[in-house]
Order: sequence, then C-alpha cells, then structure tokens
Amino acid sequence: MAIRKNRHADPSLEVAANGLIHRRALLGRGVLIAGAMGSGFSNSLTGAAAEPLPVDAWSLEIGAAIPPYDRPAKYEKNVVRTLTNPKNEPRTSQARTPHHLLNGTITPNGLHFVVSRTGFPDIDPDKHRLAIHGLVKQPLVFTLDALARYPMVSRINFVECGGNSAPLYNKDPVQANVQAIHGLVSCSEWTGVRMSTLLEETGIDPKAKWLLAEGADGPSMNRSIPIAKALDDVMIALYQNGERIAPSNGYPMRLLVPGYEGNMNVKWLHRIKLVEAPVMAINETMQYTYRVAGPKIWQFFFPMEVKSFVTHPSPGLMLKEPGYYEISGLAYSGNGRIAKVMVSADGGNSWGEAALDAPVLSKALTRFRMPWRWDGQPVILQSRAWDEAGNMQPTREEMSIERGAPKVNVPVTAFPMGHMNVITSWAIDPKGEVKHVYA
Amino acid sequence: MAIRKNRHADPSLEVAANGLIHRRALLGRGVLIAGAMGSGFSNSLTGAAAEPLPVDAWSLEIGAAIPPYDRPAKYEKNVVRTLTNPKNEPRTSQARTPHHLLNGTITPNGLHFVVSRTGFPDIDPDKHRLAIHGLVKQPLVFTLDALARYPMVSRINFVECGGNSAPLYNKDPVQANVQAIHGLVSCSEWTGVRMSTLLEETGIDPKAKWLLAEGADGPSMNRSIPIAKALDDVMIALYQNGERIAPSNGYPMRLLVPGYEGNMNVKWLHRIKLVEAPVMAINETMQYTYRVAGPKIWQFFFPMEVKSFVTHPSPGLMLKEPGYYEISGLAYSGNGRIAKVMVSADGGNSWGEAALDAPVLSKALTRFRMPWRWDGQPVILQSRAWDEAGNMQPTREEMSIERGAPKVNVPVTAFPMGHMNVITSWAIDPKGEVKHVYA
Repeated sequence: MAIRKNRHADPSLEVAANGLIHRRALLGRGVLIAGAMGSGFSNSLTGAAAEPLPVDAWSLEIGAAIPPYDRPAKYEKNVVRTLTNPKNEPRTSQARTPHHLLNGTITPNGLHFVVSRTGFPDIDPDKHRLAIHGLVKQPLVFTLDALARYPMVSRINFVECGGNSAPLYNKDPVQANVQAIHGLVSCSEWTGVRMSTLLEETGIDPKAKWLLAEGADGPSMNRSIPIAKALDDVMIALYQNGERIAPSNGYPMRLLVPGYEGNMNVKWLHRIKLVEAPVMAINETMQYTYRVAGPKIWQFFFPMEVKSFVTHPSPGLMLKEPGYYEISGLAYSGNGRIAKVMVSADGGNSWGEAALDAPVLSKALTRFRMPWRWDGQPVILQSRAWDEAGNMQPTREEMSIERGAPKVNVPVTAFPMGHMNVITSWAIDPKGEVKHVYA
Repeated sequence: MAIRKNRHADPSLEVAANGLIHRRALLGRGVLIAGAMGSGFSNSLTGAAAEPLPVDAWSLEIGAAIPPYDRPAKYEKNVVRTLTNPKNEPRTSQARTPHHLLNGTITPNGLHFVVSRTGFPDIDPDKHRLAIHGLVKQPLVFTLDALARYPMVSRINFVECGGNSAPLYNKDPVQANVQAIHGLVSCSEWTGVRMSTLLEETGIDPKAKWLLAEGADGPSMNRSIPIAKALDDVMIALYQNGERIAPSNGYPMRLLVPGYEGNMNVKWLHRIKLVEAPVMAINETMQYTYRVAGPKIWQFFFPMEVKSFVTHPSPGLMLKEPGYYEISGLAYSGNGRIAKVMVSADGGNSWGEAALDAPVLSKALTRFRMPWRWDGQPVILQSRAWDEAGNMQPTREEMSIERGAPKVNVPVTAFPMGHMNVITSWAIDPKGEVKHVYA
C-alpha cells in the first residue's frame, strides 16, 4: 500500500538531475517533500496504525539497572572501529571511524580514529609531566594539577590523518566502504590550555622559530611545528567531549593543532622544545612528505585541504526500493569554515546545493544534507565542498594535473601519498547496491 | 621556588573584589595573567626543566592494543554518575552527571544524566515501532529503517530534569557537591527527524492542539506537549553525539523538546497521539506541578529557566595554595542563548563579566570562564546568568518573594518543587576547602 498517492512531487523543485530536490524544501513544513515520500513509501516502511496498539514484550518487563557509566546498546555491537593491527604486532595500528553508521558531526570518544606506532602507553596521570624547554627564558615542567589551574578554552575541531582517503590514489576504484576510505578523520569538542599561555610562562627566545612536540609513547612520536601556528590556535588538550581524553587518543594530554595533519597533534604529549629550525623527524622526512608531479616532494605541508564525502547512502547501505531518501555526508577544511557543498546524482553533470547543519564551525566537521527521490535507475552520487578561504575540492583530473597521476596500485591500508581530497563517487545500481567508482 | 617573581599583577586588571581579573586578559598573549601566575605558583606546580629529561617507565613498554571501542582510562574510574537506586529497587532511579570532573559543554553519552521509573527496557530496534495516531488524517507506524530515510537535522541542546537543583529549596545549605545539586542536566549533539516532518506525513486534524508522547518503558512514561512546540523545534532523536542513543537515554529513539522539562523529552518513544486537550498524565498532575506563593500551583510550566553554576572550583575540589586559578562553570536557558554571565568572589557585592566559550548556542550548555587570583583569604564565589530573552537568574530572595519560602527541609534526592534556578554560592576557607553556603 503506497500511502497518500495523491501527493505527487512538484518537478519544479528538482534542482539537479536524477531527483535532487531543492534544499530549502527542508526549511518549510515539508509539504512537498512529504508528497514525494508519499508517492515513494510502501507499507514495508509505513503502515496505518490501528487501535489498540500492540504492547511489546519489553514494556512488560522490569528494566535493567541504570549503570554508573553507560555503554552503547548490545544491538550496536557492529558500530566499532575497524583495526588494521588487532593483534598489536610490532607495526603501525590504524583504527577507523564508522562514518556510515554515525550521524551528526561529533565523533564519540569510543569511535575516534587512531593511528599509533605501538598501541597506547599506560600513563599514570599523577606521575606524568609536560616539560617546555629549549629556546625559552625559563624552562618549566608542568603537572596535570598545574595545567588545570590555567585559563582553558573549549573548541570543536576535527583531526584528520595526513593519509586519510589514500585509497583514492589507487589506479582503480577500491571496493571498500566509507570507513575504509575516509575513516581516519573524526571530530570532538576539545578543552585545554592554549600553547600561547604556557609559552608566556616560559618566555620565548627570539631565535625560536619552531617547536618540537614529543609523545611519551614508545617510539617518542615527534613533529616540528612553526611557532606562529603554536601561538595562533594550538592547545594542550586535556578533555575530549567533556571527559578526559581517551587512552588511545593521548591520555592524559595531547597537542591539538587545528586543521593540520593528524600526526602533528602529538598524543601522550610530554615534551615541547623550542628550536631554531625543524628537527627533520622521521614524520617529516620519510613519513608525511608527498610525491607530486615533476617529480617533486612536498614537505612541511600542514593544513588538511577542503574535502567532503557522502556517508548516506554509501557502500554497505543498500537502498531497498525506489522513493525518497536523504543524501547526507561530511565536509571540512583545515583552512576555516565550509562555505558551500554541492551534490550531484548524475556523476557531476548537474549539481544542487546542500543544506548545512548549524553551527558551521571553523576546522570542524560540517554535516550536509540533500533531499532526494530515487527513481530506481542507475545514479552516481558525488559531493564537492568549498571553504571560506576560497579553496575548492578538486576532481580526480584536477588533482592529477597538479600532482601527477599515480603509477601503481596502492593498497587500502598504505598511504605513501597523502592529502588526498578529490571528489568521491558512489554508483547505485537498479538493485540499490552502492559501489565505489571513479567518475 | 616561586617563578618569575618580577612579574606582578597589574591591580588595574581587577574587575571585582577578591581577585577577579578582566576576562579580556584571556584574549591576549597572557602576559599579565602569567605575571599573576608567576607570583602565585610555587615549585609544587611548576619547576625548572633540566636536560636530559627523565624517561618514564611507560615510554619503555610496548603499548596496549587499540580496541574496537575505546573506554575511559582506568585512572578515571571515579568519573561516573552517582546513582540513587543502584540495586534497581521498584522506585525511581536518578543518575547524575559529575560536572566537577568534566570540562567543556558536551556530556559524553556514558555520563548523561538519567531519571527513570523502572531502569531501562531492552528494546530490539528491528521490532520497535513508532505510531502516530489520534487526530491525524492518516495514522501511521514507522520502523527505524523508515525514519532513517526522512530529512534529519543535528542540533546541540541541553536536557534538564524539572527537579534539577531541588536541593537549593532546602532551608539550610545541603553539604553536597555540584554533581548532587546540579547533576540532572547534560548536553549532547542530537540528530533525528523533525516532528513537523512526520506530522506532515500523517496530516493534522485542525482540532488537534496537543500531542501525547508515550515511552515503551514499563510505566509507559507519558506527557502532553502543545502542538505549537511540536511543530517548532521538537525532534524524534535517533543519535546522541554521533552514535545511537544510549540505552538509559531512550534507545532506539526519544523525543527531544529543546529547553523544556526533561520528562517531556520522552525516552524509548513508541507512540504519539494527537489530542484536543492535555491528558492530565501523572507527570503533569502529581509530578511536575509546582507549589508557589499564595498558595498556588504552577502546571504546564515547560521551559527550564536561565541558570548558571560554578563547577571549578566547587565542593570536593580543594585549592592547595593561594595563587592563580580559573573559575569556570556552566550556563544555559530554555528560552534561548546565554547573553551574559557575571561572577562574584565576594558573595555578590561586586561582579565581573565572564568570558563565554564560542559558539554560544540556543538551549545548549555554555561554558563561562573567569581568571582569578586567590589571595588565601575567605571568599564566596557566585555566578549569575542572563539569557537573550531578557531573563535574569534570580537570587534566593527574589525567588522566595515570587514563589514563597519553603517551610521544610527537602532531602537532596527529592524534588517536591522544581524549576529551581537561584544563584549557587560556594564559600572557600583559608585552607582552600569549598563548601556550599547561602549568601
């Protein structure tokens, strides 16, 4: 039984081919969208409600005790990070955020992505110290108690691995889902002490142009950071989404370097040394340098560029029948706020502008949404983002011209090249299956 | 060793008595605040860093494996909700958020407050249904899959129990911490389908002026909600901070009624019936009605009024020595954005304006911060908030005149009277101990 058959969609609302509907239709009472739904929904999704309503078994049972700390429902056991190194062998571990199973913009701490060189250290917060030394007027060591007394600030920011989305360098489209392709980006409310506040305490020798940040993990993960950025918006983060930082994300403290490569946001932070020049750490020589056309190498290439991708629908989320759906996804830029996201259902031939959930924050994940009526024919979904600094997410062709096309297939778990931010394409076939394609 | 003794605070920066420092001092490079710190910090908090730095034991160990779902560090086992009914006896359970141990504005799902009449039901999301019926043109039943296809929206909103802060009705100040007094308010990013979208699907009979929302828990928790509010900003929430709603907060769906009493945000939502008049449910007759002066009764009194309280310092968080500290806390209003928060360190005789962390969102927790230098003398800390609708948080005297002074002592766990939003006062003695007082 298709309900409310009398309400047919107004074709004038279509802003782009293959059923993309004007985003402002979302702002009214939904009359016209509901019309489109009515013509698309069958009784497998909605049905007439008769009285008396059935009483469910769980409404007749005594509920479970409220626990001191809540955990996700047992039915959500598949909503987890995928692990590249579950046995903790002596190599890098990656844990990816399941964006196709989440919605909104905040990533829960349990599901924030991780890249780690040797698991996570067991740090006693009462014994942990942060040292700031080198080209300072007064080297200082801070306990967690001391840091807690300084002025703090809270900000919502994404963190993204420089190697996120690297599977898109592959010559052929890898058959993987949004978690495997784009799962190395997450977003939290971070709270901590500004780097500038602590450097005011130590004083800065005018010769200092960089600082070296180092973690207390086994490999002493370290990176050089320009002091101008450190004085701008870098934070010693102590809290993540209200509570202390998760163990695999740097407990008890990490550096937050908004918009810059994930590896610069040093976890388990225990040392900051002010220096004249970058220290040429492995993470800025062998790792996190990028081959580009010429051949050339990009080094010290910090901000993560403007990017977007569709999370709903995406591979693994089957469309069971034609009708109304919401296309939604995530957009962000290391250079500021998202200015606009355009969505295409015909592989980039025609585009409609998506609605953005408020507030649109600088260097934070932004959720975009687009009403859509699928007619059951093959479509190719794409999204493309612009940031307030005027940057535009590139097509594959545009990036290829800039950086040179890759010559080899790249496995999903490797990222010899980073900063991949081209448009992602999902093809949907008449059966409703979603696949990764290049278009 | 007090460091940087040569930097003394500029007395002209003090904006109110007992060491409150101008909030704009936070916006610069911290020179003058650091000066104040320098004169206050001893080597128990910071000390000179010598090279080589010591290597901690945990830096020499192989780290633990990254788990599929992260949990807080073992050292944070005390950061939990306090439970009024841990054995799940046949009575109401309350679980309170530990605001004195958190920072920022987002409450992690594990620590969101709960009020429940009989624990939480074990609801199979595939079998759960939401029925909308009564004074509609077409009654409908929605599966979770169907709801997932509708246009969604994400918003950051607080939820507060109508009985939060009820201990402040007590004739004498209860000796309890901020968790016991104010722990029934929390804040999340909620994502779901607008109520207006679903009512467009069902159509609305013009006679419908209210809707009854009912949960699938044993007691069928229910409330009447004016249809104008439902069409304004009410949401069927499916996600909380990115992931599915926590079991004790309504999994798989709850009503979100921004700014209104917590009990109206019906959890485990399974039925919405459009009706002509409120159904006079127990939660709007025996519960959640309020005695006021006269004597009179307030009924159907929905928005949670403007409130603020200091979380740092607060009872249980001892000040170990005189010197610089940050005073911070939470402010919010069910009537919109917070416009201003003033802080006093002398029991309300003089006030300085606090800084507000951006973004300041409507009907969301807002973190305020105030630099402060404690000279070791007794002080009384207070905060007072104003909202954009022009409402001002009242003093105890102002509320007493409006509502009539309570005649009896009220136990901490009871709330025969609700909507308590008077100024909270923390007294700090020369030993640095913080106590709840009336001032």
